[in-house]
Amino acid sequence: MDTNIVVEKDQPGYPHRGKVFAAIHAHLDDIPYYAGGLCAKLASEGYTGYIIRTSNDEKCGGHTTAENILSNEQEHLKMAAALGFKDVFDLYYRNHRMDGISSIEIRGRLILIFRMLKVDTVITFNPWGHGEENPDHWVTGRAVEEACWMGGMSNDFPEHMEAGIQPHSVRERYYFYARSGQPFNRVVDISSHIEEKLNAIVECRSQGGGNRGSELRARLAKQGRRLPLLANDDRTADREYARRFLLGADQDYGKEYNLRYAERFYYIDQRPPAKPEVDDYIEKNAVSL
Amino acid sequence: MDTNIVVEKDQPGYPHRGKVFAAIHAHLDDIPYYAGGLCAKLASEGYTGYIIRTSNDEKCGGHTTAENILSNEQEHLKMAAALGFKDVFDLYYRNHRMDGISSIEIRGRLILIFRMLKVDTVITFNPWGHGEENPDHWVTGRAVEEACWMGGMSNDFPEHMEAGIQPHSVRERYYFYARSGQPFNRVVDISSHIEEKLNAIVECRSQGGGNRGSELRARLAKQGRRLPLLANDDRTADREYARRFLLGADQDYGKEYNLRYAERFYYIDQRPPAKPEVDDYIEKNAVSL
Amino acid sequence: MDTNIVVEKDQPGYPHRGKVFAAIHAHLDDIPYYAGGLCAKLASEGYTGYIIRTSNDEKCGGHTTAENILSNEQEHLKMAAALGFKDVFDLYYRNHRMDGISSIEIRGRLILIFRMLKVDTVITFNPWGHGEENPDHWVTGRAVEEACWMGGMSNDFPEHMEAGIQPHSVRERYYFYARSGQPFNRVVDISSHIEEKLNAIVECRSQGGGNRGSELRARLAKQGRRLPLLANDDRTADREYARRFLLGADQDYGKEYNLRYAERFYYIDQRPPAKPEVDDYIEKNAVSL
Amino acid sequence: MDTNIVVEKDQPGYPHRGKVFAAIHAHLDDIPYYAGGLCAKLASEGYTGYIIRTSNDEKCGGHTTAENILSNEQEHLKMAAALGFKDVFDLYYRNHRMDGISSIEIRGRLILIFRMLKVDTVITFNPWGHGEENPDHWVTGRAVEEACWMGGMSNDFPEHMEAGIQPHSVRERYYFYARSGQPFNRVVDISSHIEEKLNAIVECRSQGGGNRGSELRARLAKQGRRLPLLANDDRTADREYARRFLLGADQDYGKEYNLRYAERFYYIDQRPPAKPEVDDYIEKNAVSL
Amino acid sequence: MDTNIVVEKDQPGYPHRGKVFAAIHAHLDDIPYYAGGLCAKLASEGYTGYIIRTSNDEKCGGHTTAENILSNEQEHLKMAAALGFKDVFDLYYRNHRMDGISSIEIRGRLILIFRMLKVDTVITFNPWGHGEENPDHWVTGRAVEEACWMGGMSNDFPEHMEAGIQPHSVRERYYFYARSGQPFNRVVDISSHIEEKLNAIVECRSQGGGNRGSELRARLAKQGRRLPLLANDDRTADREYARRFLLGADQDYGKEYNLRYAERFYYIDQRPPAKPEVDDYIEKNAVSL
Amino acid sequence: MDTNIVVEKDQPGYPHRGKVFAAIHAHLDDIPYYAGGLCAKLASEGYTGYIIRTSNDEKCGGHTTAENILSNEQEHLKMAAALGFKDVFDLYYRNHRMDGISSIEIRGRLILIFRMLKVDTVITFNPWGHGEENPDHWVTGRAVEEACWMGGMSNDFPEHMEAGIQPHSVRERYYFYARSGQPFNRVVDISSHIEEKLNAIVECRSQGGGNRGSELRARLAKQGRRLPLLANDDRTADREYARRFLLGADQDYGKEYNLRYAERFYYIDQRPPAKPEVDDYIEKNAVSL
Repeated sequence: MDTNIVVEKDQPGYPHRGKVFAAIHAHLDDIPYYAGGLCAKLASEGYTGYIIRTSNDEKCGGHTTAENILSNEQEHLKMAAALGFKDVFDLYYRNHRMDGISSIEIRGRLILIFRMLKVDTVITFNPWGHGEENPDHWVTGRAVEEACWMGGMSNDFPEHMEAGIQPHSVRERYYFYARSGQPFNRVVDISSHIEEKLNAIVECRSQGGGNRGSELRARLAKQGRRLPLLANDDRTADREYARRFLLGADQDYGKEYNLRYAERFYYIDQRPPAKPEVDDYIEKNAVSL
Repeated sequence: MDTNIVVEKDQPGYPHRGKVFAAIHAHLDDIPYYAGGLCAKLASEGYTGYIIRTSNDEKCGGHTTAENILSNEQEHLKMAAALGFKDVFDLYYRNHRMDGISSIEIRGRLILIFRMLKVDTVITFNPWGHGEENPDHWVTGRAVEEACWMGGMSNDFPEHMEAGIQPHSVRERYYFYARSGQPFNRVVDISSHIEEKLNAIVECRSQGGGNRGSELRARLAKQGRRLPLLANDDRTADREYARRFLLGADQDYGKEYNLRYAERFYYIDQRPPAKPEVDDYIEKNAVSL
Repeated sequence: MDTNIVVEKDQPGYPHRGKVFAAIHAHLDDIPYYAGGLCAKLASEGYTGYIIRTSNDEKCGGHTTAENILSNEQEHLKMAAALGFKDVFDLYYRNHRMDGISSIEIRGRLILIFRMLKVDTVITFNPWGHGEENPDHWVTGRAVEEACWMGGMSNDFPEHMEAGIQPHSVRERYYFYARSGQPFNRVVDISSHIEEKLNAIVECRSQGGGNRGSELRARLAKQGRRLPLLANDDRTADREYARRFLLGADQDYGKEYNLRYAERFYYIDQRPPAKPEVDDYIEKNAVSL
Repeated sequence: MDTNIVVEKDQPGYPHRGKVFAAIHAHLDDIPYYAGGLCAKLASEGYTGYIIRTSNDEKCGGHTTAENILSNEQEHLKMAAALGFKDVFDLYYRNHRMDGISSIEIRGRLILIFRMLKVDTVITFNPWGHGEENPDHWVTGRAVEEACWMGGMSNDFPEHMEAGIQPHSVRERYYFYARSGQPFNRVVDISSHIEEKLNAIVECRSQGGGNRGSELRARLAKQGRRLPLLANDDRTADREYARRFLLGADQDYGKEYNLRYAERFYYIDQRPPAKPEVDDYIEKNAVSL
Repeated sequence: MDTNIVVEKDQPGYPHRGKVFAAIHAHLDDIPYYAGGLCAKLASEGYTGYIIRTSNDEKCGGHTTAENILSNEQEHLKMAAALGFKDVFDLYYRNHRMDGISSIEIRGRLILIFRMLKVDTVITFNPWGHGEENPDHWVTGRAVEEACWMGGMSNDFPEHMEAGIQPHSVRERYYFYARSGQPFNRVVDISSHIEEKLNAIVECRSQGGGNRGSELRARLAKQGRRLPLLANDDRTADREYARRFLLGADQDYGKEYNLRYAERFYYIDQRPPAKPEVDDYIEKNAVSL
Repeated sequence: MDTNIVVEKDQPGYPHRGKVFAAIHAHLDDIPYYAGGLCAKLASEGYTGYIIRTSNDEKCGGHTTAENILSNEQEHLKMAAALGFKDVFDLYYRNHRMDGISSIEIRGRLILIFRMLKVDTVITFNPWGHGEENPDHWVTGRAVEEACWMGGMSNDFPEHMEAGIQPHSVRERYYFYARSGQPFNRVVDISSHIEEKLNAIVECRSQGGGNRGSELRARLAKQGRRLPLLANDDRTADREYARRFLLGADQDYGKEYNLRYAERFYYIDQRPPAKPEVDDYIEKNAVSL
């Protein structure tokens, strides 16, 4: 467990060009809040991003189960567009009930997806993060973690190879800092991506409070009042409300490092070293036969 | 197994007044096709009916998963209204995946519902019906069957009693004749309820072909053609199409018994005898001390 | 599937001496009613019998769950003694919930027991018997069926061999006729064992109605009445009540074959033939090299 | 994760009047040892308490499985009375086997109970507490944790609402300090409730050592000896033995804070703030339209 | 359920050219015995065949678990070659333990395979066949049956479409006649394919008795004896032994229809009619607008 | 949780004579790397050792699944011999899929083994060790932990007693330090056992890199080169490669304590105290009656 904290800043140019990341979450508003800035940053630095939502979000939205599922699905597409994702995968497992599914089944599906997209990097829940009381979260995190390394082994689901999809390992992982007390070793400066993060948050209306600004504006208007902060249109109201009231954690995480806004992650890098120790040894010690 | 076939005809008056039935199916179009006539008949004879749909119907409808769930949910409400159900319960288990859920969990939920509604009679899938290749169907049938008798035992889920909900057994069961070769012992004459059955079927648009008539009418119109059968409006077109093309089984089942339309069921009656054998014996043999 | 019906009569002497049978049921009153006569008969013909109860019978008895478990356990010991069983195994799986356990776990336990007892013959539920609405029953029957043949294979649970317990196949099976319509091919004449069967039934008080006679006698006494049938003591009352009112099925099954009392079973014999076809062929056709 | 340790002292009057707590444990002796003092304290401060035991305690007591289940059940009622609980719920899952049950099923049952009792506060195992080698414990803790927040969502088990039982969130949690090294942030002074705690402990005879004093007294008597500590009657012997030998942890936990006896908990408060930040902001910044 | 028996004879030419069948079994020797003739026949009539083995066959072979797995795997490849299969899929689920796997997981894998191979026809166990005491068999049959129709629905595993693999329904099924009493409606004349069937059977050495001939030959040789039937080499000995002793069922099934050898199947055809009833109706009744 | 670090050194003589340890791992190379030194040390100090491998290692080895299973099985026997184990148990659960098995089933098997071997001490994965991304590892560790204490209770699997196998508790546990950041409280000096550890490692060829030395030697030879380190034979090459490149962690763990090589463990001792506190108290305070 690496607990040395690294501050990850914007990088010039497109250092990640050709790389692929997948952000995997359970509910509409997980990625926007926990990693919206990181996703925007990686995209701006050359990564191609995909987003996978594991649950069907049926419990949130304040309407019938079916209406909730639809509104979350539609808002999820808009939120993903706001963060620049290339494609969206919805797995639609039942919200609040993911601890009842087969861990092997969901893992197998993620392996197929990671292999076909040739994912380099995942962003998801920390499967070992204590205090994670939502089973949809740890089930998702655990399945992702396992799929990352099993996907690289050719005797796991060999039928994929018959379909032309090759074994593939995911070598870099960013785990959310989702609950107070979870470990983190990377503080990502998202200050220059805060507008995209806000764009994502305001699409989270069925859950995540993205429309609280416009709702408040309407409520005050009925009372003959208004807040200058919320300006004169709903979109602005939602964005400015979110900026003022919903980014507190990001501000707190940044403050310690003199950053305006930051997100925290537990980052794991399993890329092989450029030059293995043994190669170095051979170079120095090999002799002719 | 009782295989003597009884033909069940309309009964005058309201012989079932005060009785409650629950029709439990997995998908929007199960009840309408397999038991729409019976449900209408029982309601007309005094029963109060409730309908329970176990799956979320996410796979059918031709749109996104979420859109399918919503359209099926909404059509289900209309279909239930057409058959006179008093209330609708949706359990929203994932369509095609009900063999992955805990049988004990769904059973416990059905026991609560049967107890609180004081259900006398259920209509559902035959849990022992061979050839039932849809796991949502047999999982539903099996859970219903078990809930019927376990619900009557006070040590099953005793917390219900603390909530004021008493043990209750369901004593009569009608099992669908859902696949060729399944057993049946009751042929229900639904001839006088065929209009309600049609009203139910035409609401089944996401699955069940309820809108095939209007679709065909539109297609022919583009070709400058029409079918007199389909008349001049979509509602009539759907009803008449269904009457002509979708009631073949009901006609076949009736023919043998000189009924215009019939539905088949495997019926089980577990109501206690009016006078147990032992009471009769006591009457005849008891002597004074 | 062998459906030729054989009538199994009492055999003189001890033709089964050295053989072992295990009767496996889920609830206190299964064996007494479905196979009490057969068990008594086999014991009288030389078999050593063991009885295994899979559930904890917590739901039946009319008292608290714990009190039910205890009264069923204690009555089960007495009932087993009445039928001459040498030993009793209780597995205590939760009554009504056996469809929630691991089929592999219970099967492994039965394999250990069958191996260590060197069981020749089992008597249990027909795992394929339709209409078996009690999950404890079919779960038990299925586990027994599988344990019978898997127990003979040395790579199943090889740790048993390290404990000195050898692979062992169970080759004969009697499946209960537990629900109307289930298959049967053997009608066992239990006329000479009906007293033992009654002795077993009257121990079934928490369930099975073994004490209905004495209860009725007490009820009538309060009314200043009595039934000559029930005589003057509780034991006799229970026995005579059971003889009169609870053996109807056995009488019906016997009637057809001119037997006073009979039990029905689906019997399967997988003992190897005394002389395989190929040995006969060799005898007739082998020549010298 | 809040790790600032707060010492919770007795509060005057009945500050919790109208509030309800539920103490949920797996085995007879969990609550008495881990939280007997807290339960007595909360009751004395106005709370109404309920106790839920999830397992059937079949493995402990030194007798047959059924006898163990009964003695634990009966002692549990007495122990609960000693701590002032208003009602007792027993779920009777099999002891040592709770990691084999459906997490969704037990969660659903707890949700029904929490909703119908309108529980404000739970006391249970820390589902994230490392070193918890007893599966009954972490299964219980996890189910409770999830039920606390899911119970507040109206699309979870909507049939409860049809039965007149409304959604309800549990907002305060006390997690046991059950194994060395688990986190805690609250040290509860139980010095004034130690007699009730002892009254509870001495009822734990099948497990928990509540009768060790009287057993020791009898053993010594056979040797013609006695311990003054154990006095002259069994009840006193049990209480004084427990006071002397079984409260060591409570004394240790208290010592650091100059308390005679203390229990440790990890406490979580999710009650909404009296005045949300946004309301304050509106007050200060709203202007007329 | 269609129980009219059809005798399926050899067809001239390649009537199935372009069609694909998949034979799915659990163990090395299932396909050879139950359907070896049919597979050879379909291949000879133009079908391309694939074979899928679901278990790892670890229990059979008489050696260590690992040695059994390897010998079965290698013999399976040879057996498949003998019957002309184009490719072999091994899923390696644990032998005797397939009732412990997730039915949804294995089904998903079969759906991927059926879709990518565009399978027209499957040959497998009858999932509804009573008396099937081997859980590997009914688990396999059930998963295949469900995969056949679910594979055609686009909202099942939509990630397949992202990988370029389209929804696909399997419309024809042949179910084995694997246990006495199972239903069958097709008797396939395999007389002209009996040599290929024998070639397949003799490869089944770890199980299936394919090497009994050579074993017997060796045993007799040690005794200075020989059987003319077994000729002078092991290959011939195995083939002739199998022909003489292991094809009894095929001979019996054929006898009734005057065929030398036959296999029995329950055949299901779900191909859509060439001309739906409604099209015919339109033709006859459509008028101009 | 005891976190005081103890350095465990070689002990003279045979202080553990008569004691039994079981080392339980999931894959061929777990024990050699994590605990090879400890196992050799315990054996040298008088312990009798048994090794249990839970998975079938089917995914590693670079060949077909069956070939992998066999090569791992065979190498496992050789590796176990190198470390002096008396016997080897293979459970053959599917590699990468152990989170899909019944925890109760595997636990029951381990209980039987621990009881029959009368195991005093286990060496296995830390079931609470964070960061353990391999499900085979934590499933194994958890099952072992639970089996250790449940095995001592007579109402768990009472059929074992009928087979003559008595209840037995395992009181000492060494948990691997398998991932960076896991807890440890014991540093075992393995300096004098490093040759046995190397002997074990070089047998791990299918996984664990035991043959990297000989592979490198062959590769260099093709290039006309050699490394003096690898000497002139494959065995030496493998041993010296491992010594140079694969023991880095052991060297690091030892350095801090001035040991050449060390392994880290989290050690738990649950042996009862030689003299319980209460006995001491009786001695001092008991008086005559």
